[in-house]
Amino acid sequence: MSLDEFGLIERIARRVPARADIVLGIGDDAALLQPSPEQQLAVTADTLNAGVHFPLETAAADLGWKALAVNLSDLAAMGATPVWCTLSLSLPEADAAWIDGFADGLFALADASGIALVGGDTTRGPLSVSITAMGRVPAAQALRRDGARPGDDVWISGCPGEAAGALRLWQQGRLDVRGVAADAGHERLRERLQRPTPRLALGRALRGLAHAAADVSDGLLADLGHIAARSGVAAVVQADAVPLSAALCGALGDAAAGDCALRGGDDYELCFTAAPARRAALQALAAHLALPLTRIGRIEAGEGVHCAGAPVAGPAHGYRHFAG
Amino acid sequence: MSLDEFGLIERIARRVPARADIVLGIGDDAALLQPSPEQQLAVTADTLNAGVHFPLETAAADLGWKALAVNLSDLAAMGATPVWCTLSLSLPEADAAWIDGFADGLFALADASGIALVGGDTTRGPLSVSITAMGRVPAAQALRRDGARPGDDVWISGCPGEAAGALRLWQQGRLDVRGVAADAGHERLRERLQRPTPRLALGRALRGLAHAAADVSDGLLADLGHIAARSGVAAVVQADAVPLSAALCGALGDAAAGDCALRGGDDYELCFTAAPARRAALQALAAHLALPLTRIGRIEAGEGVHCAGAPVAGPAHGYRHFAG
Repeated sequence: MSLDEFGLIERIARRVPARADIVLGIGDDAALLQPSPEQQLAVTADTLNAGVHFPLETAAADLGWKALAVNLSDLAAMGATPVWCTLSLSLPEADAAWIDGFADGLFALADASGIALVGGDTTRGPLSVSITAMGRVPAAQALRRDGARPGDDVWISGCPGEAAGALRLWQQGRLDVRGVAADAGHERLRERLQRPTPRLALGRALRGLAHAAADVSDGLLADLGHIAARSGVAAVVQADAVPLSAALCGALGDAAAGDCALRGGDDYELCFTAAPARRAALQALAAHLALPLTRIGRIEAGEGVHCAGAPVAGPAHGYRHFAG
Repeated sequence: MSLDEFGLIERIARRVPARADIVLGIGDDAALLQPSPEQQLAVTADTLNAGVHFPLETAAADLGWKALAVNLSDLAAMGATPVWCTLSLSLPEADAAWIDGFADGLFALADASGIALVGGDTTRGPLSVSITAMGRVPAAQALRRDGARPGDDVWISGCPGEAAGALRLWQQGRLDVRGVAADAGHERLRERLQRPTPRLALGRALRGLAHAAADVSDGLLADLGHIAARSGVAAVVQADAVPLSAALCGALGDAAAGDCALRGGDDYELCFTAAPARRAALQALAAHLALPLTRIGRIEAGEGVHCAGAPVAGPAHGYRHFAG
């Protein structure tokens, strides 16, 4: 079945809930939104292109979920509460079943996270999804990258590297990203690649606890490097303190698992810094959220990201980019 | 010269001005923005894909201008004042000269219109530009599509059809979209296609004067059809009242010119409805803005868009879509 642009828009628009902060939703030249008084707006935009950011055979529902998840992860890293988003979807051809699948994935996460789709467009072109997400955060409470201070601990949520591990399995021909994997460990990695969970509750809870935060979508060392650069400090990572999941080590071996955890991208955990006085509060938060939070290093005077502890396998030049 | 993603972002970010309503600009997980109290937010998103929305040989600077212009036109049609935007740029390869040209065009219009680029991303992929633009508008003063009332006049700004005319000339091999055309009339059409002027001052001035408005990016009859549908009324267009520029008629002849004006897309004039009591005020506004405003029809009870007056050349089925 082929649909024109208005048909596609209608098919998506009918799934958008009515809400008091949306004065006018999809269907006019622009949406009209009512910002909360006293709140600042956090705004981020991320694009996923077929064959570049996701395997061509990715299921429509997984793509809908992930395209929103990567944007929500940026809001999480700011400590923001998701509010509205726009969607620009380019498709080689309009296909009703594909659109419905895409919308299933997108709205499953949108509804769960409280973000409302308020506009956008559908156009003909190579498969590509651009989302701009807006969140709200109380003034002066956002988690920024530039607040890390010497003496801070460096923390990571969850077990980084699992999405990168799934991508390696797929590249090795050992994982079909479309269906449920028979191996439970492989399936865990596949879900982390295709259906990442943005750490929204963690981000909000870190307001007032963390000094700086970023998601690790570019890789743990790279994104910690952004925090160090913006804060004018150095970060020292204890490589053997970075938590590696049994699923990741089982699939790739310990050395490759460690490399994925430090350098792999496409993970949506939060890396953050906090004063040592916050350790008990953060461990209590981990228990409350049922999400591991692990101390993996410290912030020092200086610049760059440095690895201490057991060296991690992988090309040595991988470190050069992050050296101080 | 090849640039990595961070190099591209830096090349664009350095051209963004500092402003009090931007708490934190490009360089963190998200931008932090301070909305105006008492104002609503108008938000729109539009994508331009190479070969679909613009000729492949389009100059980088023209593409930068136009990608922003089509979004600003949507804000104009809401009566909104531009404030912030995000940019998602997909490029087959990173090229510093191309990026600088693109930024020249984008920032020429951004700076002139007061919109600040606050975030986005650059990714590898087929050439595509997605912009989400945000504007502010006082509560309950936005120009919507659903406010047209029987008895209203229908108005159009400027001379519609010139961009569509330029596209036809290009399709006929009679116009090079990259350079200044030797024929002054052709050059006027080329500028309208490549460097459209969003009618921002008109949109703001129409608050309180117009009952409904839309830009005519989908074509005059199509977008007037959206106003009629959303308002639950019929629109009757006096085809021979639609202003045709000498440049358009000279390039294509009167019949094709009329077809471009009624059905051509990619024009960024505003179509709006207003009570007959506003005629003098609107003519004064036209003089003040040095922008023609022309009465081309009326709103009636019923539904659909109907053409009266001299029939306009073109395939008859072009009307069917708009028939009541």
